[in-house]
Amino acid sequence: KEFDGYKQSVQENNDSFFKCSMAIVIFFMQCGFAFLEAGCIRAKNVTNLLLNNVLESLIAGIGYWAIGWAFAYGPNYGPSAPFIGGSQFFLIGSENYSTFFFQYVFAATASTIITGAVAERIEFFAFCCYSFVISSIIYPVLTHWGWSDVGWMKVGIQNGGIHDFAGSGMVHLCGGSIAFIAAWIIGPRVGRFPKNGEGVPNPINGHSVPLTALGGFILMFGFLAFNGGSTAEISTPGTGQITAKAMVNTILSGAFATFSYLLLYYLRKRKWSCLYGINAALAGMVAACAGCNISQPWGTTVIGIGAGLLYMAFSSLALKLKIDDPLDAFAVHFGGGLWGLIAVCLIGEKGIFYAIFYHDVLFTQALAQLGWNLLCALVIICWSVAATFPMFFLLKVFKLLRISPEVEVKGMDVHINGEPAYPSDTYGDGYGLESNK
Amino acid sequence: KEFDGYKQSVQENNDSFFKCSMAIVIFFMQCGFAFLEAGCIRAKNVTNLLLNNVLESLIAGIGYWAIGWAFAYGPNYGPSAPFIGGSQFFLIGSENYSTFFFQYVFAATASTIITGAVAERIEFFAFCCYSFVISSIIYPVLTHWGWSDVGWMKVGIQNGGIHDFAGSGMVHLCGGSIAFIAAWIIGPRVGRFPKNGEGVPNPINGHSVPLTALGGFILMFGFLAFNGGSTAEISTPGTGQITAKAMVNTILSGAFATFSYLLLYYLRKRKWSCLYGINAALAGMVAACAGCNISQPWGTTVIGIGAGLLYMAFSSLALKLKIDDPLDAFAVHFGGGLWGLIAVCLIGEKGIFYAIFYHDVLFTQALAQLGWNLLCALVIICWSVAATFPMFFLLKVFKLLRISPEVEVKGMDVHINGEPAYPSDTYGDGYGLESNK
Amino acid sequence: KEFDGYKQSVQENNDSFFKCSMAIVIFFMQCGFAFLEAGCIRAKNVTNLLLNNVLESLIAGIGYWAIGWAFAYGPNYGPSAPFIGGSQFFLIGSENYSTFFFQYVFAATASTIITGAVAERIEFFAFCCYSFVISSIIYPVLTHWGWSDVGWMKVGIQNGGIHDFAGSGMVHLCGGSIAFIAAWIIGPRVGRFPKNGEGVPNPINGHSVPLTALGGFILMFGFLAFNGGSTAEISTPGTGQITAKAMVNTILSGAFATFSYLLLYYLRKRKWSCLYGINAALAGMVAACAGCNISQPWGTTVIGIGAGLLYMAFSSLALKLKIDDPLDAFAVHFGGGLWGLIAVCLIGEKGIFYAIFYHDVLFTQALAQLGWNLLCALVIICWSVAATFPMFFLLKVFKLLRISPEVEVKGMDVHINGEPAYPSDTYGDGYGLESNK
Repeated sequence: KEFDGYKQSVQENNDSFFKCSMAIVIFFMQCGFAFLEAGCIRAKNVTNLLLNNVLESLIAGIGYWAIGWAFAYGPNYGPSAPFIGGSQFFLIGSENYSTFFFQYVFAATASTIITGAVAERIEFFAFCCYSFVISSIIYPVLTHWGWSDVGWMKVGIQNGGIHDFAGSGMVHLCGGSIAFIAAWIIGPRVGRFPKNGEGVPNPINGHSVPLTALGGFILMFGFLAFNGGSTAEISTPGTGQITAKAMVNTILSGAFATFSYLLLYYLRKRKWSCLYGINAALAGMVAACAGCNISQPWGTTVIGIGAGLLYMAFSSLALKLKIDDPLDAFAVHFGGGLWGLIAVCLIGEKGIFYAIFYHDVLFTQALAQLGWNLLCALVIICWSVAATFPMFFLLKVFKLLRISPEVEVKGMDVHINGEPAYPSDTYGDGYGLESNK
Repeated sequence: KEFDGYKQSVQENNDSFFKCSMAIVIFFMQCGFAFLEAGCIRAKNVTNLLLNNVLESLIAGIGYWAIGWAFAYGPNYGPSAPFIGGSQFFLIGSENYSTFFFQYVFAATASTIITGAVAERIEFFAFCCYSFVISSIIYPVLTHWGWSDVGWMKVGIQNGGIHDFAGSGMVHLCGGSIAFIAAWIIGPRVGRFPKNGEGVPNPINGHSVPLTALGGFILMFGFLAFNGGSTAEISTPGTGQITAKAMVNTILSGAFATFSYLLLYYLRKRKWSCLYGINAALAGMVAACAGCNISQPWGTTVIGIGAGLLYMAFSSLALKLKIDDPLDAFAVHFGGGLWGLIAVCLIGEKGIFYAIFYHDVLFTQALAQLGWNLLCALVIICWSVAATFPMFFLLKVFKLLRISPEVEVKGMDVHINGEPAYPSDTYGDGYGLESNK
Repeated sequence: KEFDGYKQSVQENNDSFFKCSMAIVIFFMQCGFAFLEAGCIRAKNVTNLLLNNVLESLIAGIGYWAIGWAFAYGPNYGPSAPFIGGSQFFLIGSENYSTFFFQYVFAATASTIITGAVAERIEFFAFCCYSFVISSIIYPVLTHWGWSDVGWMKVGIQNGGIHDFAGSGMVHLCGGSIAFIAAWIIGPRVGRFPKNGEGVPNPINGHSVPLTALGGFILMFGFLAFNGGSTAEISTPGTGQITAKAMVNTILSGAFATFSYLLLYYLRKRKWSCLYGINAALAGMVAACAGCNISQPWGTTVIGIGAGLLYMAFSSLALKLKIDDPLDAFAVHFGGGLWGLIAVCLIGEKGIFYAIFYHDVLFTQALAQLGWNLLCALVIICWSVAATFPMFFLLKVFKLLRISPEVEVKGMDVHINGEPAYPSDTYGDGYGLESNK
């Protein structure tokens, strides 16, 4: 008896410790997204974007606490149980803080993906609005479907539910879909595409590769906790190795995505791009989310290469559709996320590859899993689009979505925030050039 | 028997692991403070400030090892035991490295708060001096009172001692008080206030919002470990959830502080300030320190809103008193810290709110706790001021406190450090503008 | 029985958790190196360097997975067992992901040291080449000798093998040696040394002290995990305190190295250098690697001071030899690493100091340990040089090592990467100077 009590207490503490320590690293991804994005936009809008990113994590905190958690994991014993949670609003009645905190940082991540797609032109109010709605309604409902015990995606048909370990679908496909819709409705930045619709798009450079690289590094650091921590516990025998396996697969998937992308890019442009290389690494890590717990490292090479190529394809597609997505948020997260949901059914354990070559699972069963994952992917896209389209559309109709062209041309920082990112009167050292040496 | 040995060994290792992993994240807050401050000053003093911040953590390491730990937690069996520790100087005789390391990173944090208040004008020697004294004497003695088992604040009168879980008082009220005294004695930067004492103060902008935002993000990341890790162990049943609860409350308090501040600021200035938003978030997290382990999330909203408002009030007060505190270190840490010590007695468990509405504690007892916390706050302020005033005063008398006006106008980096932060001859890419595209 | 199963399962999970959480922080050191280096070079080459650093961690991932792990820790039952591992290529046959992941981040660190020494002039292909070779062959073989159970350095002669807890030798002496050879073969940057071989070297400033300080802070953060995490498990009784002790010693060693260096530097130049102070701190932490688990904090002062002085000496030596090492990678890692291997035999437990003053070890035994550590250091240097010299030499012969002088003068970013780090057309805010206030 004493031993059982001890066991349970140790398990609870260890699991909480694990969730909290992984969650704070995942929280730090907010900083990663902020700087990935800040470096990719012009200096005149940097303060605005950074404020949005700071607020993102705080809005998500309030939203997920007030409503989000209840929709995602609040017990619901009614007939709507497979579709939405229904209690523990404002965390009243729940003492499971560690799981709440762990889930909150994922919600914040899902919501922050959109910021990149609408950068340099979104109104402050519109930002607050979508940020709250996504982190408190859209994403939580989705995770109720896919990750709560009673959710319809999780329950599935026969052989189990959706394979989406760390959120290729829940977080990234969702965020990527919304990023697409948002960038489409808000329209391209002034000067991004020729007015008559002809000719090549005009690239708008970001102002600082170092800031983007800093963001990229922080996101890679964070992704290890994001994917590795998705076991969400460290007590079941073998969980420790699954955590490590997920981390290894995350790195490898990112690596193969980057090299496949960079090689193709080099063949076309004869340049080694740092910015696209970072994005490709992220796409690979996004694709690794779904199955990094049940893939072998060798299989991850396929996931990574596919993610790199899909990122490239979706990036071109967005450009063809004249969608101005300054961060390629759609291509990275939609492309990587969709491929992740598919690939896990191909080369993950009990996937089609194993059905064919190892016969340790029935081919039909593996195929059914693929079908279910694809169906879920479709639903995720539809839900993300359908639930946010009205919001963005109404914001647009009431002229609350986008800043005025005058402000856009001159820059948001001075007008909206009153704080230029790099005030010119604060530079120089008063000693002249020669004393610099 | 074997089981007991096993239990103890696991407990020791887990606790050490917990303390070490939280402590390294708290250590990283040194980087957060450095960049929060670096972004808020002019380019000509950035190298100087960054060196000071790097040395801060190292000086605190030496000081806390040589003297600080002994004063704070070194066993003392004499009559002075409630006031000061008295053994284990240079860690001789102690093998409790994990607790030492954990406490050291807090000492470094307390000391680094001052750096912002005296930025752009403090002499290198004066910096080294206060940094050593605070981390090895002032802060350790304080924590002996409040956190060591025999300290008089901790022992208290009847119903237990001071409620200050993670250091609203010990770390932030102490640091904020010293920041005020230091900024007052050293005097404002050249040009900050009109010479005749009339007219509005002249704002001195910082040179880089991105650097400040980076620092802010790192501090938010670090605060989760700072507050969550303050359980300082992970073995007592239920500790894991307390850690997580502290993290949740930290985020919520920061969020409500930020929004309350930003709304008021917007009503007055019609701008959404990024820099003040970050500072408000930090004030909220500072206020959360004292009671994040025994507050409900709903109560934390009160803590956060109060911290935002008090930050604004103390920031105005400092300006009225013509105190030039470039980072608002006084307003953030004094305001947030003081409010934290009060608020925990209002809405924390067994606080006045619960005494009134739930009757699960006697009203007189709750009131006595508030009185004790207030008394301790007063003592913390007095001690911090009284113990550092002579040092700063003497440094001023011997002309060691402040750089010369010539160096201040031209900038400290070239003169003192020989390294301009952004040497102008290192920029440009030799390809001209057009190839930038 | 149940208890034994439980014990083993908890141990495996805890150890995995420990290794993974330390490893992701060590992984983040890649970001630290990237920014330490980025700040120390000119703006025209920053994108190139950052891409290399991003790829570094990914190439090491692929290389260590494909070959490196097999050479380092793949079981080998043949006569070559003391010299090289021989199985588990591509991780096939191994399920020990946590150890793999932990060792991979060390391999990435070893390889990334070189990047600083050849910055601003290395060809992209040459970078990929050395990066892969070091992380998959040179470093893994070395760690097989020193850290795998059957390695000849680890087995040693009589009284045990090499003392190199966290890699003063394996990681830093190796990386520092290769940095020297690489910088020597590739030659100095254009304009670094006067053409006629006479006169003083021409300093080439880095473009951003803040970026370097950011990198320095991240590396200090990472070093705590690097050295503290090197227990590589958290289950043996007492390990938790060893982890903490290693962290404490790391800070103290860094602190004493910095102050000894800065004081000497100030006496010579009357300036307090930020950049050299950071490097000295890193040298101190490098020196702490070898013995931070078996040194007392007081002894660490000797390690730190020695590291600071040796860093200064080797830095001057490199300059005298006309080796252009923009980051002092050789001086920091070779100097610190070599001193670490020596110092652990002097003041580490059972070292010469203890033999003389405490008699708890035979003097001859302590001396033999020093001899063995010195012999191993010599072999590490020889192996690192001998195994990479042909590669760099061949790359040079085939003109693949170094970019053309034209590109070097104009900058690599535009030509090689197509992305200037700070595109000039992306700055300014369109409101004019006065609105900046």
